[in-house]
Amino acid sequence: MDRRSFIKKAGLAGVGAGAAALATPAISQGNQTWRMVTTWPKNFPGLGVGAQRLADRITAASGGRLTVQVYAAGELVPPLQSLDAVIDGSAEMSHGAAYYWQNKSQGLSFFTGVPYGMTSRELTGWVRFLGGQEIWDEIYDQFGVQGFLSGDTGTQAGGWFRNELTGLDSIKGLRFRTPGLGGQVWEKLGATVTNMAAGEIFQALQSGTLDAAEFVGPYNDLALGFYQVCKNYYFPSFVEPGLATELVVSKAKYQELPSDLQAIIRDACQAEYDNVAADFAANDPRALQTLVNEHGVQVRTFPDDILQAGANAAKEILQTMLDSSDPLTKKTAESFVSALNIVRQKTQGTDSLFIQAREKYFQI
Amino acid sequence: MDRRSFIKKAGLAGVGAGAAALATPAISQGNQTWRMVTTWPKNFPGLGVGAQRLADRITAASGGRLTVQVYAAGELVPPLQSLDAVIDGSAEMSHGAAYYWQNKSQGLSFFTGVPYGMTSRELTGWVRFLGGQEIWDEIYDQFGVQGFLSGDTGTQAGGWFRNELTGLDSIKGLRFRTPGLGGQVWEKLGATVTNMAAGEIFQALQSGTLDAAEFVGPYNDLALGFYQVCKNYYFPSFVEPGLATELVVSKAKYQELPSDLQAIIRDACQAEYDNVAADFAANDPRALQTLVNEHGVQVRTFPDDILQAGANAAKEILQTMLDSSDPLTKKTAESFVSALNIVRQKTQGTDSLFIQAREKYFQI
Repeated sequence: MDRRSFIKKAGLAGVGAGAAALATPAISQGNQTWRMVTTWPKNFPGLGVGAQRLADRITAASGGRLTVQVYAAGELVPPLQSLDAVIDGSAEMSHGAAYYWQNKSQGLSFFTGVPYGMTSRELTGWVRFLGGQEIWDEIYDQFGVQGFLSGDTGTQAGGWFRNELTGLDSIKGLRFRTPGLGGQVWEKLGATVTNMAAGEIFQALQSGTLDAAEFVGPYNDLALGFYQVCKNYYFPSFVEPGLATELVVSKAKYQELPSDLQAIIRDACQAEYDNVAADFAANDPRALQTLVNEHGVQVRTFPDDILQAGANAAKEILQTMLDSSDPLTKKTAESFVSALNIVRQKTQGTDSLFIQAREKYFQI
Repeated sequence: MDRRSFIKKAGLAGVGAGAAALATPAISQGNQTWRMVTTWPKNFPGLGVGAQRLADRITAASGGRLTVQVYAAGELVPPLQSLDAVIDGSAEMSHGAAYYWQNKSQGLSFFTGVPYGMTSRELTGWVRFLGGQEIWDEIYDQFGVQGFLSGDTGTQAGGWFRNELTGLDSIKGLRFRTPGLGGQVWEKLGATVTNMAAGEIFQALQSGTLDAAEFVGPYNDLALGFYQVCKNYYFPSFVEPGLATELVVSKAKYQELPSDLQAIIRDACQAEYDNVAADFAANDPRALQTLVNEHGVQVRTFPDDILQAGANAAKEILQTMLDSSDPLTKKTAESFVSALNIVRQKTQGTDSLFIQAREKYFQI
């Protein structure tokens, strides 16, 4: 965060000068500084904080040979130009989510998460042991970058609704803020889906422009104050069973690094993946406790007909990717579906049975 | 594995000489070689392989400044003397499971897993964000060592049973191989519990000395051939909802390292924790497929009265630790239970709801 306080001290006129001074990596005595642009607001719980921790890990493990400087969304480039900044060389690294770049390749969605897709643990099974990383590399090779998983929210919340949902009928015409493939699912269910930036949601709910909004989960949602307008908080997000973040690195610059620094980046990303998931595992339920106990939020589960219609809609969307005329999208979708049908067996046949038994029989 | 082939080539007489030559860390030009003793057989799926990967990560990320040499169980010291080897300085690192050292401090069980306790993700929530690591450090400080989570099997299989279980009555007098706190739970359920080394289980099942045996899960169990004797494979292991491995390092030697090497060890452990869990997520279901399709194994779930009685027994055991006269055991148990009651909310209220909806409605 040094850079920011520097900018603050220098005043607005200093921003350009600061950016120019950092326009190429600083190299002295073999030490380099790399710029990590991110898609997250400053100190965004879990994800933005995770990007900073990842940068700090690389700096520490490299003994300062590779110092990583983090730029919050908009500090160096607008959030949705983070990947382009790495491609055009104005940054060495981008921290965000692969599905932001669906316009470059539709298959990238799978490396963040898709409706009714994989949980965070299942995703690592696919990416690390069932061929996922290799396909991801093939997609990103086209753009001269390399992607690594760098964090995961786990299964998200389904959204904030002004009124209680009694069934699929409640969805018709509902003005719902929910982006991406998840938004497409809700559209098929009859909602009027809109997207807007995080900072605009609260106002739109308050003014009545929106009937409902989905953002992340308790840990992130608490800070945005949706509970002041909507009291019905629905679970689970069947459209975001996990949301993985990525670190994207310029492939040429990565390959120029000595192999120990390459290993340090790889290990730091994988360590931070675990860390972000642990962060949400601990802090989502704590935030939910606050929402319920201090703000009178009602925790609800989606009616069955919504879950079922959601599954049908998700299947239609995945089917279009399985049928894609783009060979890499088709290949990604096929690999994902094949891996899902392997990993879900353990999740359903072992993990879920334990969790249900514990819920039913074990109180302490 | 170089050392092993060296030993093979040198013949049995060479073993002593080889061990003596490696008795103190090699230091040349600032480079060190550290010995990692493990509790795992050579190439043990998931866990032993994970220990080797962890060693390789540290060697690679340190650019060879810290080379880690792995010793399978028995190569340098017997498996259950691994921690003592670090304490007495005959090794710098031990890779195993904290619950092996319950005789040193009962609270250590919690950092591996306890009956009806935490899943792998929940455990990271506690250890990394809800105070678990700090208590673990306090326990290990007494022995001059430092522990890091280094892997996790996820929820295990419940065991191999010669006969189908119709209910709690089927357990009475059942001669069952199942160690540790899990064994204590099964004893309370009426089983005649015995422990024996992995390599002896198959023979005991075949000769009729055992009626049932529990080891790890499909990935590890497949290799041991239990399916040749028992066809009933029960899920889930409510006594091992997760099994975390640890890396234990001599604290004095760790603190003498420069801070970048300390960071490299920490990150490598956390990265490999994720990796081992991903390995089991991908390979447990693949092994189970082989067991079912090629070896005629019947996958079964425990009858409800067994799950319920198991929960009562687990609670009794945890209660004795909550009531322990040893302040650190009591403190660990209290921290664990308090964290469990936080993290289980997300697992049950979000993750589990998604998994059940997907199981019910989403086939592709």
